[in-house]
Amino acid sequence: MAATGSALDHLSCPKCSARADADVVHHLCGCGSPLLARYDLELAAATLRHGDLGARGDGLWRWRELLPVRDDAHHVSLGERSTPIVPLQRIGELCGLHRLAFKDEGMLPTGSFKARGAAIGVSRAKELGVLAFAMPTNGNAGGAWSAYGRRAGLEAHIAMPKAAPIIHRMECECTGARVTLVDGVISDAGKVVAGWVREQGLYDASTLKEPYRIEGKKTLGFEIVEQYGWDVPDVVLYPTGGGVGLIGIDKGLEELRGVGLLGERRPRLVAVQASGCAPIVRAWSARARESEFWEHSVTAAFGINVPKAIGDFLVLDAIYASDGCAVGVDDSAILEMRARVAAEEGVLLCPEGAATIAAAALLRSNGWIRDGERVLAINTGSGLKYPFS
Amino acid sequence: MAATGSALDHLSCPKCSARADADVVHHLCGCGSPLLARYDLELAAATLRHGDLGARGDGLWRWRELLPVRDDAHHVSLGERSTPIVPLQRIGELCGLHRLAFKDEGMLPTGSFKARGAAIGVSRAKELGVLAFAMPTNGNAGGAWSAYGRRAGLEAHIAMPKAAPIIHRMECECTGARVTLVDGVISDAGKVVAGWVREQGLYDASTLKEPYRIEGKKTLGFEIVEQYGWDVPDVVLYPTGGGVGLIGIDKGLEELRGVGLLGERRPRLVAVQASGCAPIVRAWSARARESEFWEHSVTAAFGINVPKAIGDFLVLDAIYASDGCAVGVDDSAILEMRARVAAEEGVLLCPEGAATIAAAALLRSNGWIRDGERVLAINTGSGLKYPFS
Repeated sequence: MAATGSALDHLSCPKCSARADADVVHHLCGCGSPLLARYDLELAAATLRHGDLGARGDGLWRWRELLPVRDDAHHVSLGERSTPIVPLQRIGELCGLHRLAFKDEGMLPTGSFKARGAAIGVSRAKELGVLAFAMPTNGNAGGAWSAYGRRAGLEAHIAMPKAAPIIHRMECECTGARVTLVDGVISDAGKVVAGWVREQGLYDASTLKEPYRIEGKKTLGFEIVEQYGWDVPDVVLYPTGGGVGLIGIDKGLEELRGVGLLGERRPRLVAVQASGCAPIVRAWSARARESEFWEHSVTAAFGINVPKAIGDFLVLDAIYASDGCAVGVDDSAILEMRARVAAEEGVLLCPEGAATIAAAALLRSNGWIRDGERVLAINTGSGLKYPFS
Repeated sequence: MAATGSALDHLSCPKCSARADADVVHHLCGCGSPLLARYDLELAAATLRHGDLGARGDGLWRWRELLPVRDDAHHVSLGERSTPIVPLQRIGELCGLHRLAFKDEGMLPTGSFKARGAAIGVSRAKELGVLAFAMPTNGNAGGAWSAYGRRAGLEAHIAMPKAAPIIHRMECECTGARVTLVDGVISDAGKVVAGWVREQGLYDASTLKEPYRIEGKKTLGFEIVEQYGWDVPDVVLYPTGGGVGLIGIDKGLEELRGVGLLGERRPRLVAVQASGCAPIVRAWSARARESEFWEHSVTAAFGINVPKAIGDFLVLDAIYASDGCAVGVDDSAILEMRARVAAEEGVLLCPEGAATIAAAALLRSNGWIRDGERVLAINTGSGLKYPFS
């Protein structure tokens, strides 16, 4: 055993404040809310310092004090590294966004940001003795969890909408996952998974139903702060399906403030959705605490076709607390922006990433984003996974 | 103007030793050989040191003394970073290769190692005043040069075999290249490009017909040395079509020796080809200095379907000088290894990368690779670009 130096302390419920032991398997809180990992930040702060970080190489694992994996032997890795922030100068100028950039999560193993959650989630599941897991997916999460799961020697059971892109299905199948295709959207796939969990006792790796996937996603927040010189941009736009990345960025920033690596400045967080599936936008417009199920959802940005997110209240909390907003964009605007960014910048975004640039343009034109603000869009996956969009 | 500190000195011909000015556009030497960039290594050694490198962040551009771009303003980047070296423990154990790893070039922008050549080649072309270029491609080079070309504002003319994977064609088209589909293999596409160059005066960016693409590829060698702790593995396997990566690794190692960052140890370089297109293997078996055109070439590893490489003599030189070898593997072994690596390790290689693992297994079984040797295979691209192999 080689200790990682993790300062993981306990799990806590953001809804009812219940507390749970982090070293046994937990899923949702008794009250139905996700549980979140909490750290001894004072302990973490003693060793997590600028200078030390620089000497730790690159990638997720060097944030070890604020990650839940306790033993190095359980690290499951496919070579994930920090992802680059790439300026979009020409598109920015065309839209009046003179400091526009995107973070290219397509540069991670399995070609998407889901690798962050899978690297940490699978490692921690392995550490807790899990042998087999189940999850619903719109594609990228399934691809990532299948790959990292295989790497860890875990058995993967994946339920995926029939309409999911073919490349994602192929990824899951060739890395040995048992894939079930489901008529309907991800919430229908979620019902299938709930049945497996109930009947076969599989570990439920659905979005936020285990506490550790988000611990990987929050490294997105860590990297943003580091890459902006231990500061933050003015606005961060995130394509929001389940919303774990947005909650994760917010959690990451809070923890960096807690260990003294970030001051009080916050980016305004923007949840970007497709007009055809915009439950968070509707809730935000009504200043509601939670969203309502979006009937008959449809969008070309398949990854954000999530009619009701279990962590919706956490997404909304993060938006309200940061003076952010939620915005819906039409499929036509998404696909047009994808084509335009490729043609102007040589950058092939995924449709969900293109949605964030379309949203940035919209928010600049209505004045919500001001002239000269530093705007960061999250491109959640490689455009290569969507050749026919 | 902000000088990069490039120590580029002149171009030289590896065949007839002719010398040329590096600061005007050159293609092949008068004798028909490619020209190679040469640096003032003493000048480079004064500033290119371990400690300084660590402080320069990550990625290609920090090797600036040994890159040809002279002005920072001409750097064209899509966020390329050093690629990870990932162990393949289970496959390694199954094949008796206990220290097997691969370098995952799929983690570069546009999902392949061609981004290295395109980043440097396009930047230098821009610096020399080029406005439009032409090239033949089996796919990845076209995707990369289209993307970086667009980023730089250059016009791209690409000729590609009709049978090239659809994702590559899409990449070129959506980033604004003019794509011409050609009946036949890459040498037929090369003839089309030669016609454009002759008739329209386009800059010829064909493999080794301009001197700078290889300057990007050699950073593969720089990174390998750095990642092995300023040393080298025992064996490096490279899937060889045009062979620029292999020549580049060799050139990179030679330059690092020249600036004092590497000792005399050399890895044995292995050119891996498909049995259906193995001109280098045939030449190596005959101890020849050059290869002969391989008629009716065919392989599922599309990227290495190159019947005659213009730099074949440089590839063969590098193999002979390093006590390396050339080895051909059947398509069935390539595709079986691709499936096996995915199923055992959760890693989706491209077919060309899978060929290097199949070759490593073969060379271990016949004793050419010895027990305990450190073996590094180059996975030249993301497996996601080949969903249907």
